[in-house]
Amino acid sequence: MKTRKLTRRNILAAGGVAAASTLAAPAIAQNRLSWKMITAWPKNFPGLGTGAQRIADAITEMSEGQLSIKLYAAGELVPPLEVFDAVAQGTAEMGHSAPAYWTGKNKSFAFFAVVPGGLVAQEQNAWVAYGGGQELWDETYGEYGLKAWPAGNTGTQMGGWFNKEINSPDDLNGLRMRIPGLAGEVINRAGGLAVNIPGGEIMTSMQSGVVDAVEFAGPWTDLAFGFHKVAKYYYGPGFQEPGPSLELIINRRLWDELPRHLQKIVEHASASENQRMLSEFTAGNAASLEVLVRDHGITPQKMPDDVIRKLRAISEEVLEETAELGDLNRRIYESWSKFRAQAAALAPFTEQGALNQRDL
Amino acid sequence: MKTRKLTRRNILAAGGVAAASTLAAPAIAQNRLSWKMITAWPKNFPGLGTGAQRIADAITEMSEGQLSIKLYAAGELVPPLEVFDAVAQGTAEMGHSAPAYWTGKNKSFAFFAVVPGGLVAQEQNAWVAYGGGQELWDETYGEYGLKAWPAGNTGTQMGGWFNKEINSPDDLNGLRMRIPGLAGEVINRAGGLAVNIPGGEIMTSMQSGVVDAVEFAGPWTDLAFGFHKVAKYYYGPGFQEPGPSLELIINRRLWDELPRHLQKIVEHASASENQRMLSEFTAGNAASLEVLVRDHGITPQKMPDDVIRKLRAISEEVLEETAELGDLNRRIYESWSKFRAQAAALAPFTEQGALNQRDL
Repeated sequence: MKTRKLTRRNILAAGGVAAASTLAAPAIAQNRLSWKMITAWPKNFPGLGTGAQRIADAITEMSEGQLSIKLYAAGELVPPLEVFDAVAQGTAEMGHSAPAYWTGKNKSFAFFAVVPGGLVAQEQNAWVAYGGGQELWDETYGEYGLKAWPAGNTGTQMGGWFNKEINSPDDLNGLRMRIPGLAGEVINRAGGLAVNIPGGEIMTSMQSGVVDAVEFAGPWTDLAFGFHKVAKYYYGPGFQEPGPSLELIINRRLWDELPRHLQKIVEHASASENQRMLSEFTAGNAASLEVLVRDHGITPQKMPDDVIRKLRAISEEVLEETAELGDLNRRIYESWSKFRAQAAALAPFTEQGALNQRDL
Repeated sequence: MKTRKLTRRNILAAGGVAAASTLAAPAIAQNRLSWKMITAWPKNFPGLGTGAQRIADAITEMSEGQLSIKLYAAGELVPPLEVFDAVAQGTAEMGHSAPAYWTGKNKSFAFFAVVPGGLVAQEQNAWVAYGGGQELWDETYGEYGLKAWPAGNTGTQMGGWFNKEINSPDDLNGLRMRIPGLAGEVINRAGGLAVNIPGGEIMTSMQSGVVDAVEFAGPWTDLAFGFHKVAKYYYGPGFQEPGPSLELIINRRLWDELPRHLQKIVEHASASENQRMLSEFTAGNAASLEVLVRDHGITPQKMPDDVIRKLRAISEEVLEETAELGDLNRRIYESWSKFRAQAAALAPFTEQGALNQRDL
């Protein structure tokens, strides 16, 4: 092997490699690890950002700083929609985001978040933990060198804010709506036009008439955005997101090297936040809907049944088509479909039935 | 002070005190704590016993044995219905049980578990974490020297197995039913006779005709018990338990002395199991209902609306009466009632609405 001559170019290249491997390998000092958690959310964004922060703090506190997690808000280290790639590459060791954001890589990732006409949070968690979902998630994210778990859920989202009434399926024709993911595809096939607009521009796009409708999450976030100031009609629940799950993702190689007790700490911090965020959204939505109705004169309403039936039928087509994308895609669709059928048969005798009975 | 003469009686008495304080104080060896978790469940009883074991193991593993938890099944150290008192007295440091078991001490404890016509699991968790429930729970259990958290949930339970059809409120007259707690009081006021029968004797009491109906939990546990072999009619969901929460209870003094990182580990082990058990019950119920229908010819059915209306109306009376029991009881009832009203207004636009839409 030839000795390389030290040149400025060589030194810079070596420095570059060293910098990259400093980022990739955990910073170890006195048996302590310092990890970066990059997120797809603004700093302390209600529910999502605060939930990610709670996971970071819980890991640091439970491990007495043996594994110390520093959170980076969207854009601080990488842009929000690069979290997946950055963790896969080891730019950061872990991230908090939504599987729904990465459907450009693989449409079937949506099943680990939520799909139109799919599972509510309780069912989603049951499929992942006991219905084979986690194993399929490990397999498909494993192709990218990642490991992920459910790490928060917003609960069923509202249908959105509209500047015109939706009285029949025909009213979807030409509807320009801010709605991302597979649900956007459903709106397009229903005759509308799905538009992707970053969170920060939603208000102005509605005010200026660039879109006729927007959906974001639920009453808690919607009241904070102030959508009631720019739109008149509030529809819900949405067909599109019955129980969207968020994710904690970790670079798989670094995960495998983590001591077992720290692995357990990460798992439990993620699992406990998975429920806590749902509690926060549920309480926040309940209190905020009361404010929207009482103080702002908003009357939430349901979409007509035939509109929902049409959107549901198109949704089923979109979901079925994912099964054709490959062997693993088919196995994800079939595992999920089998679970949904069982859960739907059970639902009238569990939470759905209990809630309907309570209204009698 | 007089020197006491050493006698066999004195030595035994001193030994007794020493033994008691060994139990009360944590066993410390090389900065390691060994704690006992006593439970109200048989060893590895599906969901309840296995869930308690998961909490014990998670604490031991996350802390690398700094806080090592050994689980004792019902009766191994104390009888199942003495868990509360034994932890309060320090016989064991922690316990896993159900707040519903201790309503003999204070009827309002039921609100921290579940009450007839009350909250489903997702709402219950939201009330406890963000609606003021945890603070009220701390206050009322604090009177007994205890601290508790939600630590598992069975999800909405079925109405139960009946040997006769329930077609009208009159069919409740004279009905002898195995149903515990406040729901038992409701059945009594509705003209029936609530009977308390330990888990192990439920099957024989149904077979021999001692009772006309039994309820335990859901399809998962019921299939394991084999109730379908001794009763013909399976009704659900029950009015009585829309989302029963279990509890991890800890001796308050020992909790306060625990180092902060171990406190956090206990909290997160409990919180993550709170969701995991619900996932296990949801998946287990969904799969078991399919087996009951397909392999055992069971057709689950709903109670007629007027029967549910009657049971619901009586339930409201029973709940309202708890508010008259004292200042803290009133505050618990009022906090919970306010939350239920908000949650019920939200429900048609969240999970309840999404599940009903899915059926269209």
